[in-house]
Amino acid sequence: MTMKQTTADLLEKVRATSPLVHNITNFVAMNSSANILLAAGASPVMAHSPDEVEEMTGLADALVLNIGTLQKDWIEYMVLAGKAANLKGIPVVLDPVGAGATKFRTDTVKHIMNEVNISVLRGNASEIFSLAWADIRTRGVDASLTVTPDMIHDAKELAVKLRCILAISGPEDIVTDGRQVFRVANGHPLMTKVTGIGCGLSAVTAAFCARADGDLVSATAAALGYYGLCGDLASRISRKPGGFFVAFLDTLYALSSQDIENSLNVHRV
Amino acid sequence: MTMKQTTADLLEKVRATSPLVHNITNFVAMNSSANILLAAGASPVMAHSPDEVEEMTGLADALVLNIGTLQKDWIEYMVLAGKAANLKGIPVVLDPVGAGATKFRTDTVKHIMNEVNISVLRGNASEIFSLAWADIRTRGVDASLTVTPDMIHDAKELAVKLRCILAISGPEDIVTDGRQVFRVANGHPLMTKVTGIGCGLSAVTAAFCARADGDLVSATAAALGYYGLCGDLASRISRKPGGFFVAFLDTLYALSSQDIENSLNVHRV
Amino acid sequence: MTMKQTTADLLEKVRATSPLVHNITNFVAMNSSANILLAAGASPVMAHSPDEVEEMTGLADALVLNIGTLQKDWIEYMVLAGKAANLKGIPVVLDPVGAGATKFRTDTVKHIMNEVNISVLRGNASEIFSLAWADIRTRGVDASLTVTPDMIHDAKELAVKLRCILAISGPEDIVTDGRQVFRVANGHPLMTKVTGIGCGLSAVTAAFCARADGDLVSATAAALGYYGLCGDLASRISRKPGGFFVAFLDTLYALSSQDIENSLNVHRV
Repeated sequence: MTMKQTTADLLEKVRATSPLVHNITNFVAMNSSANILLAAGASPVMAHSPDEVEEMTGLADALVLNIGTLQKDWIEYMVLAGKAANLKGIPVVLDPVGAGATKFRTDTVKHIMNEVNISVLRGNASEIFSLAWADIRTRGVDASLTVTPDMIHDAKELAVKLRCILAISGPEDIVTDGRQVFRVANGHPLMTKVTGIGCGLSAVTAAFCARADGDLVSATAAALGYYGLCGDLASRISRKPGGFFVAFLDTLYALSSQDIENSLNVHRV
Repeated sequence: MTMKQTTADLLEKVRATSPLVHNITNFVAMNSSANILLAAGASPVMAHSPDEVEEMTGLADALVLNIGTLQKDWIEYMVLAGKAANLKGIPVVLDPVGAGATKFRTDTVKHIMNEVNISVLRGNASEIFSLAWADIRTRGVDASLTVTPDMIHDAKELAVKLRCILAISGPEDIVTDGRQVFRVANGHPLMTKVTGIGCGLSAVTAAFCARADGDLVSATAAALGYYGLCGDLASRISRKPGGFFVAFLDTLYALSSQDIENSLNVHRV
Repeated sequence: MTMKQTTADLLEKVRATSPLVHNITNFVAMNSSANILLAAGASPVMAHSPDEVEEMTGLADALVLNIGTLQKDWIEYMVLAGKAANLKGIPVVLDPVGAGATKFRTDTVKHIMNEVNISVLRGNASEIFSLAWADIRTRGVDASLTVTPDMIHDAKELAVKLRCILAISGPEDIVTDGRQVFRVANGHPLMTKVTGIGCGLSAVTAAFCARADGDLVSATAAALGYYGLCGDLASRISRKPGGFFVAFLDTLYALSSQDIENSLNVHRV
C-alpha cells in the first residue's frame, strides 16, 4: 500500500469511528487540541485528576501526554495515565514541549519515559535532540533546529536508544523507529505562527495510531502528512495567522482522498 | 407571551444590562465561554480561588459551575461559590461535563447538588441521566444519547427528584422543571464539532436566567432556543467547524428579533 | 523621532528579532496571548512552575505577570519570576486584571509591586485607580471607567507614587511615567467584545519594551498605538466579534509602516 493510500485509509477510519483521545496537555493548547481533534474526526477528552485519570484512560483509544505549562503534581498524573494506557495496550504519544529549555522539562521527559512505554515522541528537533545531547538549548517552545538529511542518522540512533518512534517536526519532518524512516515534505511556515499547532499534531498522531492495526510508524508518518497537507492547503486560503487557523480547521475537517492523492508528500527513505 | 416574544425580550434585556456571569469552569472552555457570553451581550468573569470566590459571586448576577477538567480542590471552591449564590438568591447553572464517564465526575455532581441549590442542570442526555440510572456510561464528553419524546416522562420525574430545571441537549432539546416541558428544535450538528459549545450554552443559560424575573423554565428554554437558532443560522454561513465557530459568535452578537420571529422553534409540550 | 517613526521602528525590530516573552498569565488568556504575540512577531512562552520559572525568565527578553484567574500559589511564582527579571534587567509588565473587584486581587497587585520592580502597569482605569482610591469597585474584568483628560493629573501622581509607567486603557488611552504623558486615540469598542484582548496588549507591550533601548514610556505608547490601530483597521473588515478577532490577528501580523504613517493617533500631551 502506498503512503497516499495508507493516509487516506487511516483518515477515513478516524472519521468513521471517532477514536476517543485522552489528553493530559497544557493550558495553552487544551482548547485548540480539542478543536483540532474534532475537526479531524476524533473525539477528545481532557482530564488530569488522579481521582479519575486511570478510569478515563480506560475508556480511551489513545493517550496524549504534553508537558507544556508543566507543574510538578501533573507529572505523577501523567505517569498514572501512561501506565493505565500501557496496561490496556493503547498508543501513548508524548509531546516534550520546551525540553531543552529548562532542566525541569528535560528531566520530566526522561522521567516519564522511564516510567511509561511511549509509542511516539513528537516534537521539534531541538526538543527531541535535547534528550540526546546536553548542549542543546531550546529557545522557547517554538524554537526550531532545521531538520536536515544529516540528522536522519542521529534520529535513527536516538529512536533505538529511546525505544520509541520519533516524529521530528520542522520545515521537513522525519519519522523513524530506528529501522524505517519517512520524510514528510508537507507543511507551511504559517503553522509556526499559531500557538498549539504542534500540540494538536501530537493529538492527531494519537488518533491515527489508535486506528493503525499495529504499524504505528506508517500511521505516524500518515498523521504528519495529513496535517502538513492541511497546512499547505489552508495557506492557499489565507496567508495571515487568524484566517489561516480557521482555514486549517476547515481543511482538517474537509480534506478529501483526492487532495491526498494529488498533494501528499510523504516518502520512505 | 409567546416563546418568540419571551426570547426576544430576554435577549434584549441581556444586551441592554450585561449581567455579570461568574464562571467556575474548565480549562478547555474558559476562553470560549467568555467569548460566547460577550457575544451574547453578557459580562463574564472567571475566578476560582477560595480567597475570592464568594466575594466575586457577591458581585455577580448568576453563577455557572462546570466540572470539566475537574480537580478535587475545585469542588470545594464550587460549593463555596454556590452557597454564596444561594444566599444572594441568584441563579446557579451546573454543567455536569462527563458525568457518567467516571465515578469521580458522577459523585462530584451529586455532592454539589447536595450542598448547593441548583437552578438549572444543563448537559447532554447521557450526562444528566447518569444521575438517575447507574448503567449509563458516558463515552467522553461529547457523547450523546438521542433525546426522544419517550424521555420526556423520565426527564420530568428526574427534575422533580433533583428539584431543579433540567436542560437536556441533543438533536432536539428538552427543558423541564417536572411540570412544564419545552421542546427546542433549533440547533445544528456542527455545534458538536467545536469544543466548548455546550459549556457556552450553560453560560448563556445563566445570563438569561439572571434577567428572568422568576420564570426560570421559560428563560432556560429561551436561552436554548436562541443558542440553537444561532447555530442554525451560522451553519448557513459556514459548513466547516473553523468558519462555523466564527459565524456562530457573530450570530450570537447580531441575531435580531426578526430572526427569532422567523425561525425560533421552541414549543411548550 | 515622531511617534509614527518610533512605532514603525519598534514593530520592525520585534518582527526581525522575535523577543521571547515569558508569560505567567491567566487560563482564559493563555491561548489568545500566545497567538497575539506570534501575530505581532514575538515569541511566547508560558510557564509558571516554581521548578522552572526563574530559569525560563533567564531565557526571556521580557516578562508578563497577569493576575486573572488568580490562585494563591501562583503569586509566589510570579514574584520569583519577577525577581529573576529584575536581576537580569528585562522589562516586567503587570496586568492587574480585576483589581478593585476583590480584596484578593487588589492586595495581590500591591504585594507584587512591593516585591518586584514593575516597568509597566497596564490595565483599565478602574483596575489601575483601585490602587490609589479605596472606593473604586471594579465590576468584573471588562469594567471601565472612561478615561478623561481630567485623569491625566491623577495618573501622573499615581505613576510617581508607584514608580512605574502606567498604561491606562479606555476609549482613549493614557500612558505616563509621571513626567511624560501620551494619549493614544486609536482603538475600537469591538476590542471589549473579545476576551483576552486587554491581556494580549500587556503581552505586546512587553515585546515592544524588550526592544526599546531604554525609552520604555515611548515604547509603551507605541505598543498601545500599534494595537489600537490594528483594532481600528480590523473593525473595517468585520463589525462582529468572531470575524473581528480573526481580522485583528491578521492585522497585527500584516500592519505596514504605511498604515502607521496614515493612521496612528498617538500624541505627547
